[in-house]
Amino acid sequence: MKLSRYKRDLPVSYALGATLVYELLKTHPELIQRVFVRKNIKPGDDLTVLIENLKARQIEIIESPKAFNVLDAKENCLMIAEFQKPRTALPITPDAPQLVLVNPSDAGNLGTIMRSAAAFGFRDIAIITPAVDYLNPKTIRASMGAIFHLNIQEFTSFDVYCASQPTRALYAFMLDENATKLPDLQLNTRNFALIFGNEASGLPKSFAAVAQPVFIPQSSSVDSLNLSVATSIALYHFRQK
Amino acid sequence: MKLSRYKRDLPVSYALGATLVYELLKTHPELIQRVFVRKNIKPGDDLTVLIENLKARQIEIIESPKAFNVLDAKENCLMIAEFQKPRTALPITPDAPQLVLVNPSDAGNLGTIMRSAAAFGFRDIAIITPAVDYLNPKTIRASMGAIFHLNIQEFTSFDVYCASQPTRALYAFMLDENATKLPDLQLNTRNFALIFGNEASGLPKSFAAVAQPVFIPQSSSVDSLNLSVATSIALYHFRQK
Repeated sequence: MKLSRYKRDLPVSYALGATLVYELLKTHPELIQRVFVRKNIKPGDDLTVLIENLKARQIEIIESPKAFNVLDAKENCLMIAEFQKPRTALPITPDAPQLVLVNPSDAGNLGTIMRSAAAFGFRDIAIITPAVDYLNPKTIRASMGAIFHLNIQEFTSFDVYCASQPTRALYAFMLDENATKLPDLQLNTRNFALIFGNEASGLPKSFAAVAQPVFIPQSSSVDSLNLSVATSIALYHFRQK
Repeated sequence: MKLSRYKRDLPVSYALGATLVYELLKTHPELIQRVFVRKNIKPGDDLTVLIENLKARQIEIIESPKAFNVLDAKENCLMIAEFQKPRTALPITPDAPQLVLVNPSDAGNLGTIMRSAAAFGFRDIAIITPAVDYLNPKTIRASMGAIFHLNIQEFTSFDVYCASQPTRALYAFMLDENATKLPDLQLNTRNFALIFGNEASGLPKSFAAVAQPVFIPQSSSVDSLNLSVATSIALYHFRQK
């Protein structure tokens, strides 16, 4: 059995844990290549139904405690699915709003943001590179499976993203008290994008020239909000039904 | 020089990094006992002004690379302040809203929540134990110093908390679609508390009998929001000026 540690340039990634495997099976069964279990699941175990569903799709189930070591799974992780990385792309239609993350660097934050995006009906996410690998098993885990409900596309620069979405209204979240305050911003179109910068540095000031700056009102006793918190508050404000 | 790894039952904790030391010096200078630096700071270094301010308060500065190992500081951490744990307590007056966290278990989440609480003007936080140690250096670090702007008190049970705040209106955030939806909830008092449960298990259903249940509208494609995200959205909704 060939198996190596996850790397960004591999064509596959891993869903660590039965909850993620279940979510993957529900949304993209065709991507699953094989499934590892620590030991054979006996009839009556909690995972029996999931195993039966996997088998019904002719997916190979491999008993391999070693796989759990190689893939650095936690002790309470009982199942791992190896799956082909999906090639998702953003729609170019103006029918749904988009979230743009410029150089996000933390897997946990990115996963949490995906969870909020799925929760508030934002299915389309652009990631401007360099950025943390959104298909890293850690990111997938932090998303609690929300990633499987989203269309995500990487762009090598914000300009390239804009060229792909020429008619979109752009809102750049910045620490600028003179910017439009989020509670005052009401949009009557779905053809918009919310843009957030890196955890440490935020968005460069130059974004104020190409997008409408927006500020989340906050006390001066903190420097800023956590990135996943700021993004989630904006997604909640503009939540889609 | 006596120094040991951080433990919950120690009377002191540690602010890891110059930003946190600066915040601590600004808010609670009397608590700082001594400060460790990796090497002596030379005039002209970025930290010179901070060092001068510490010295002006007769705080001992100790050159000790070893302290950084013992306290498990990251490489880019250049300064550590040892400080006496503050004994904060919640005011019993109805003048300000409170946040109640029932059994929070993750240091990162708790720190992020503190950051949002300070940002949105909620200075008073009750923590129902068992819970992660809110004075652990990891929590302090995740709060980015916001913890030094807050009054935090632990309670051994929710009943004990309620007995201390008998007139407060209570709102329990639960995954119950029949609960009042957050956007529909407007309060015309500051004498209220927002209550959130544990990361994995949320609030027990029994809270619906003692508090008004509230639901943050979210799609069924996710099980729940991240705890720090859900809490921050509620704090934002009820932000105080």
